[in-house]
Amino acid sequence: MDPRPMRESYHEALGSVVNDLVAMTGRVQDAVKGATRALLEADLEAAEQVISDDNELDRLHDEVENRCFVILARQSPVAGELRTLVAALRMVGDLARMGDLAAHVAKIARMRYPKHAVPESLESNFGRMSVLADEMVEIAGRTLRERNVLDAEKMADHDEEMDALRTSQFQELLDDNWSHGVQSAVDCALLGRYYERIADHAVLMGSRVIYIVTGLHPEGDNWTIA
Amino acid sequence: MDPRPMRESYHEALGSVVNDLVAMTGRVQDAVKGATRALLEADLEAAEQVISDDNELDRLHDEVENRCFVILARQSPVAGELRTLVAALRMVGDLARMGDLAAHVAKIARMRYPKHAVPESLESNFGRMSVLADEMVEIAGRTLRERNVLDAEKMADHDEEMDALRTSQFQELLDDNWSHGVQSAVDCALLGRYYERIADHAVLMGSRVIYIVTGLHPEGDNWTIA
Repeated sequence: MDPRPMRESYHEALGSVVNDLVAMTGRVQDAVKGATRALLEADLEAAEQVISDDNELDRLHDEVENRCFVILARQSPVAGELRTLVAALRMVGDLARMGDLAAHVAKIARMRYPKHAVPESLESNFGRMSVLADEMVEIAGRTLRERNVLDAEKMADHDEEMDALRTSQFQELLDDNWSHGVQSAVDCALLGRYYERIADHAVLMGSRVIYIVTGLHPEGDNWTIA
Repeated sequence: MDPRPMRESYHEALGSVVNDLVAMTGRVQDAVKGATRALLEADLEAAEQVISDDNELDRLHDEVENRCFVILARQSPVAGELRTLVAALRMVGDLARMGDLAAHVAKIARMRYPKHAVPESLESNFGRMSVLADEMVEIAGRTLRERNVLDAEKMADHDEEMDALRTSQFQELLDDNWSHGVQSAVDCALLGRYYERIADHAVLMGSRVIYIVTGLHPEGDNWTIA
């Protein structure tokens, strides 16, 4: 439900949706960092925090989504404002999903506590994945806040490095010398998948801002006018 | 780009979006079945087919999404039609994602060919996951076509069984008696995740039809009026 008074203007309502998305981006960054601390330091408290904060992210998702629907239904926005709303509806989905994925990471850390889910030999790999994911979410948030597309190249570079890290994880855990057992390999494969998906959603968020700013929709190799 | 003539009526345009979503649902069912055949029978041809058909699903995604944007921008729909469009935009995303996940399954089958990625002891588990996923996508498609919410209970039952199958997979592959090695355990853990996510998207699609039909939005435990 929208707690704001009805007299709040349309532009204010739209602006506050964008502000809330930017704020959610910060919360997702906290979740990614907290989940990684939980994972790499076997920090149970950090894990519980991320898991419980995810409920708040889900609540924000429902609230922002609902406000978008209300604006769409009452105001019939067109052009740039319609694009903003359509993109906002998708971004809020991306953000909630990134929060879920960070919570999945934290749940694996919690399940293995007091042991470490990730063997020492893969710690720096996951540490780097986390830094990249955090920076990609940061770029997505900054792009949204400033409505510029300047960081698109950095986003793409990070995404490429993320893929390389995942390939390197697989090489290590499928190697004959892997000595940490099946459970640890399964944990690492799923953890790698979760970080990779967080990065994917950050890339999607970036592309949705490009859509807001330019009206062009990047899908595959083509840009189509919406 | 919308290849239809401008004189096509608004309602026809909206109806054709829904028809295309229903058709995509059938393609996703084919993808799930093909990927499972590829997986359980180590059928390379089936794997290649699913992977190449996924490009067509992605193309359909872009085309239907673009048509939704055009209708939103040109017609400023309200009430039920606005709900249909918002839900369609999300459903087309779900369908493309389910296609990607089926292609992920097919790629694991292809990577392990001529070996079987799934050991015999887990074949019936994955077979059942596939049947459930296929039926859930079928339910989502039928719900959309007929705009009824009658199958919601069956969808929930299937989703619960899917979770139980995944738990049972983990029990088997993390058991001390697991004799199929790390690679097979990692493959099975990721495969289980892919089927589970296909089911999740089918559940989401179902909830989006409920939103179209009723205007009520099921999120968590609450229904909010959009």
